[in-house]
Amino acid sequence: MKNSASLKTMNISNLKKRLEINKVGKEMYHLISELYPICRSITGNGVRHTLNIVKEHIPLSIHEIPSGAKAFDWTVPKEWNIKDAYIKNSRREKIIDFAKSSLHVLNYSVPVKKKVSLKELKEHLFTLPEHPDWIPYRTSYYKENWGFCMSHNQFLELRDGEYEVVIDSSLKEGYLTYGEYYIQGRKSDEVLISCHVCHPSLCNDNLSGIALTCFLAKHLKDISLEYSYRFLFIPGTIGSIVWLSLNEPDVSRIKHGLVVSCIGDSGRFTYKRSRQGNAEIDQTLLNVLMNSGSDYKVIDFFPYGYDERQYCSPGFDLPVGCLMRTPHGEYPEYHTSADNLDLVQSESLSESFLLCLSVLSTLEGNLRYLNQNPKCEPQLGKRGLYDKIGGRMDSKTRQLAMLWVLNLSDGNHTLLDISDRSGLEFGLIKDAADALAACDLLKEEI
Amino acid sequence: MKNSASLKTMNISNLKKRLEINKVGKEMYHLISELYPICRSITGNGVRHTLNIVKEHIPLSIHEIPSGAKAFDWTVPKEWNIKDAYIKNSRREKIIDFAKSSLHVLNYSVPVKKKVSLKELKEHLFTLPEHPDWIPYRTSYYKENWGFCMSHNQFLELRDGEYEVVIDSSLKEGYLTYGEYYIQGRKSDEVLISCHVCHPSLCNDNLSGIALTCFLAKHLKDISLEYSYRFLFIPGTIGSIVWLSLNEPDVSRIKHGLVVSCIGDSGRFTYKRSRQGNAEIDQTLLNVLMNSGSDYKVIDFFPYGYDERQYCSPGFDLPVGCLMRTPHGEYPEYHTSADNLDLVQSESLSESFLLCLSVLSTLEGNLRYLNQNPKCEPQLGKRGLYDKIGGRMDSKTRQLAMLWVLNLSDGNHTLLDISDRSGLEFGLIKDAADALAACDLLKEEI
Amino acid sequence: MKNSASLKTMNISNLKKRLEINKVGKEMYHLISELYPICRSITGNGVRHTLNIVKEHIPLSIHEIPSGAKAFDWTVPKEWNIKDAYIKNSRREKIIDFAKSSLHVLNYSVPVKKKVSLKELKEHLFTLPEHPDWIPYRTSYYKENWGFCMSHNQFLELRDGEYEVVIDSSLKEGYLTYGEYYIQGRKSDEVLISCHVCHPSLCNDNLSGIALTCFLAKHLKDISLEYSYRFLFIPGTIGSIVWLSLNEPDVSRIKHGLVVSCIGDSGRFTYKRSRQGNAEIDQTLLNVLMNSGSDYKVIDFFPYGYDERQYCSPGFDLPVGCLMRTPHGEYPEYHTSADNLDLVQSESLSESFLLCLSVLSTLEGNLRYLNQNPKCEPQLGKRGLYDKIGGRMDSKTRQLAMLWVLNLSDGNHTLLDISDRSGLEFGLIKDAADALAACDLLKEEI
Repeated sequence: MKNSASLKTMNISNLKKRLEINKVGKEMYHLISELYPICRSITGNGVRHTLNIVKEHIPLSIHEIPSGAKAFDWTVPKEWNIKDAYIKNSRREKIIDFAKSSLHVLNYSVPVKKKVSLKELKEHLFTLPEHPDWIPYRTSYYKENWGFCMSHNQFLELRDGEYEVVIDSSLKEGYLTYGEYYIQGRKSDEVLISCHVCHPSLCNDNLSGIALTCFLAKHLKDISLEYSYRFLFIPGTIGSIVWLSLNEPDVSRIKHGLVVSCIGDSGRFTYKRSRQGNAEIDQTLLNVLMNSGSDYKVIDFFPYGYDERQYCSPGFDLPVGCLMRTPHGEYPEYHTSADNLDLVQSESLSESFLLCLSVLSTLEGNLRYLNQNPKCEPQLGKRGLYDKIGGRMDSKTRQLAMLWVLNLSDGNHTLLDISDRSGLEFGLIKDAADALAACDLLKEEI
Repeated sequence: MKNSASLKTMNISNLKKRLEINKVGKEMYHLISELYPICRSITGNGVRHTLNIVKEHIPLSIHEIPSGAKAFDWTVPKEWNIKDAYIKNSRREKIIDFAKSSLHVLNYSVPVKKKVSLKELKEHLFTLPEHPDWIPYRTSYYKENWGFCMSHNQFLELRDGEYEVVIDSSLKEGYLTYGEYYIQGRKSDEVLISCHVCHPSLCNDNLSGIALTCFLAKHLKDISLEYSYRFLFIPGTIGSIVWLSLNEPDVSRIKHGLVVSCIGDSGRFTYKRSRQGNAEIDQTLLNVLMNSGSDYKVIDFFPYGYDERQYCSPGFDLPVGCLMRTPHGEYPEYHTSADNLDLVQSESLSESFLLCLSVLSTLEGNLRYLNQNPKCEPQLGKRGLYDKIGGRMDSKTRQLAMLWVLNLSDGNHTLLDISDRSGLEFGLIKDAADALAACDLLKEEI
Repeated sequence: MKNSASLKTMNISNLKKRLEINKVGKEMYHLISELYPICRSITGNGVRHTLNIVKEHIPLSIHEIPSGAKAFDWTVPKEWNIKDAYIKNSRREKIIDFAKSSLHVLNYSVPVKKKVSLKELKEHLFTLPEHPDWIPYRTSYYKENWGFCMSHNQFLELRDGEYEVVIDSSLKEGYLTYGEYYIQGRKSDEVLISCHVCHPSLCNDNLSGIALTCFLAKHLKDISLEYSYRFLFIPGTIGSIVWLSLNEPDVSRIKHGLVVSCIGDSGRFTYKRSRQGNAEIDQTLLNVLMNSGSDYKVIDFFPYGYDERQYCSPGFDLPVGCLMRTPHGEYPEYHTSADNLDLVQSESLSESFLLCLSVLSTLEGNLRYLNQNPKCEPQLGKRGLYDKIGGRMDSKTRQLAMLWVLNLSDGNHTLLDISDRSGLEFGLIKDAADALAACDLLKEEI
């Protein structure tokens, strides 16, 4: 049952207190900590385990799509699972142990159990010479291979001799797993929030997005909503492709969308526009970021990155942007063992959460009104909406907001357009519109 | 009877001499001095007195609209008049005397005659602590009230005791008064020039606009005109609303308009665009200002300020901009007793007058031609329009102007467009077009 | 017979080697040296001589149009020829000798043979006081006159006395001569390259353009071409006007064009846009220049300069831009004897040649494709087009190029649009499109 709160009329500037916002950031951080040790991949029990933990917060539907299923140009791959993996040196000492870090194994490695020379071993080792203490994250989804990832310093210490390599994995017919949660709003038009769940022990890239998506859903499920909301927890690339292929007839309901990732570090916000470039979601992000007081950067769409690549492929061209803090590939810890629990902070997570709520609330309240008294200004004074002592030139921001709303409510401007044009915060414009509508000076254009 | 001069072919760069331009500035200043002591308001004898003085210069029609008349969402208020007002202290000394400044009374004060304690008096006093020597200007048009405005220094000297307050005003059924002057040009399409006449003893805000409007009309009435011109001298807000409501069927004749105000100080020009943003009046002001050699600033429309608020309300959306020097609220003397005869200068008034004439002359001459020899350039040389010794790369501005006019006279560009695109002054482009038209190389597109 | 090379698939970055590019620059310089002494004008044997030398390189058609022929607003003038000219002082010493420089005679001077006083002589002398050692270049095509050009220093030394002036020229019914060379490509759509051939001993302004046009034609004639190419060697202004009047029904075949001039000095490139401003030729030049590594400047069209004035007159409005290095009038040597063999360099000529080839190759390869798998990305990996080890964030430029091509091949973007949008070089985008088309992931949109 919905409580009386409504996203559309949410006063975001008071949210910090109302939501005990720091508490939300801490809960998100806690969820990330819980998910951190799990070895995820694009298929397998790691994803299932992850989704089940998310399900403790929201009533997620979990979908299983069999290996071999077709999705446009792609085929669902075999399911990969792993129990253990290690390398032992000639003294039978475990020098690499999967139990210590899920990154040690080349993701999707086929099973192996054999003795190899150092020379042969080296063909299967991946390191990062430029960050010699960190373990890189590497995958081989679509070509069968095996391998280990390790720090470059450890690599340099390897001596000639015989090594025992064991990867106790399986790659066989199974399923691709993803989670979906749908909240019905007043309208069937949808807002899509999508995150990827396929990376192993990586906090900012992957887990921060999962936590944000989960807590947004958790927060929205009990309040009154205009739009319907769809939350996707999917393996990157193959997951969104499978989802789009299964839901193709209904994607036109998606009016706005966000892919969220890398949202827990302390860097400034980065918003990557949708392919359309000036969709309402793009306009909203710009407006909210500009008025957020936070540092940010807006970049144009490019066909690389996360699942916006698929949502924005030319055959769909959905209005889906991507919200990040420091983008993939632009922080040194990206795709290494240093993208760990130290890289993400509860304060950053709180702020990201608040920004997203503000974006969604703006979308909900972004109506288009018609001025019912379009010839000259209406007399605000007789309705109690105007200063009684004239001649002063105070800031009068509230009156100015009303005059802007009246002047531009000609059927061609949404409230967001009016906020953009006037330079006044969306919340002020929305309040002014509400006051004017209450006096029948405005009527919503449906 | 018109004299032989024509606004369309006026050579503005020679105007300074021809018009004895400094003489015009001095006459405008003289008119301001004459109008300064009068206590104007949105209705009443102050406006009538003002319009009768303007009528000594131009044959103004004076309109009287009865209290209670409806104008869209508004009602013409009761008429306000005032004979005297003062405050006497307990020693029966006049400490405030309306005869010394019309600003001392809260404009539209209801009559009062009583003894009050200092405490009660203070509830009716308005001062400007940040400019302790100046008297503020305050109004209470639509809520009945009484009050006095005084310098903050005098306020601080007030001692406890009984005060006698007298405001010998009247507020009763009467009329709203405005002046209108229409000059018939060759076309019924109109240019509107509008100023407000409702402020009491304030020179830059109010009187400078009245003087400019009056002298523009006085100058245009005897010369040949393409457009018809309508000059409005109206109380702010209610005046333009009443005028629009009475003239609604004909406002579509207004092709260009300017509200003028705050045009006598020494600040740079400020042009506020019409709501349309890129109307011909906007393009003209930008072009003329850019080539004026004067400092200027162009700002976007906002639904606040003077009567452009009404002309640009969404139900009318007329192409009316606002020309000022230092805008309302941006100079410290604004709406205080320091907006006096020292703030305005005859030189500034001259320059403003000249700029407006230049704008109107540009509008009149802004035709669209069709190149009658559009395939390759015509041979200018055989028509005496081209340098005889080739190979030199002098500035050749006149030839360049002809080449621009020929190249862009394709039906899609006005002369103003050509001036903008080429960076050459409108006057040069106009002269080039005249020379080419005289050789039948151009034909005006009607 | 065509050899196997194709302009469309030319790898410009390897051209330097393949073409022995410095050799081309030297050959162009050699051609300029050969043409330098000839006294050209808008008609006469100087042009014929010039075209015959060009004909040693390419099979030029030479056209002769009789004096008196009409071309739009113009008439082909009488033909001018000159054998000799000099001034002798009172001691019968030749102080000016046409044999030493063709610039000494006012171009198109009528015959004269008489004795004159210094005073009368001075009315027929042209000098450049600001460059006292240089001889200016002056013409009098359309007004009959005679004159001499000399250095200002020599002019200052002239003493009173009688002078003998002889100009052994003729101005009579004859022909206007121009050269044209057409190469048939796969399509009848044409690319026009135009240069002027009417200036006497001036190297950068005139001869560099002739050399570039000649060697582009020479290079293209043996390779496989998509477009047809038309090369014009014409007298400035009257030549293009005559050509346009004779070929009016066919000019719509011209899809792209370049006027080339002043292309041999060491200055940065200057591209002047076509009148259309954003035609494909404009887009191509911008793209190629931006990726050239050379310094350059792009300027807007103006109706002055070379024959682009005629091609871009409003009745034709052809997509023809103008490529220069230092523009006419912006280098001190312009139209003087200092625009000589020292001002042009074979290296600059080579670079200009290469840039033009790159432009033409880009035009040829600028196709529009349709993504055959528009819903989500196709799986590049299974086609061998994708890195096998994922998770790395190398530059991956080739993959990025493929993703851009796939994402934007929606029927609204050409490969050049994709290059512009992605910031990736056209060659990379073209290669990516070829690779994708080879896998049937793209299909050319005809």
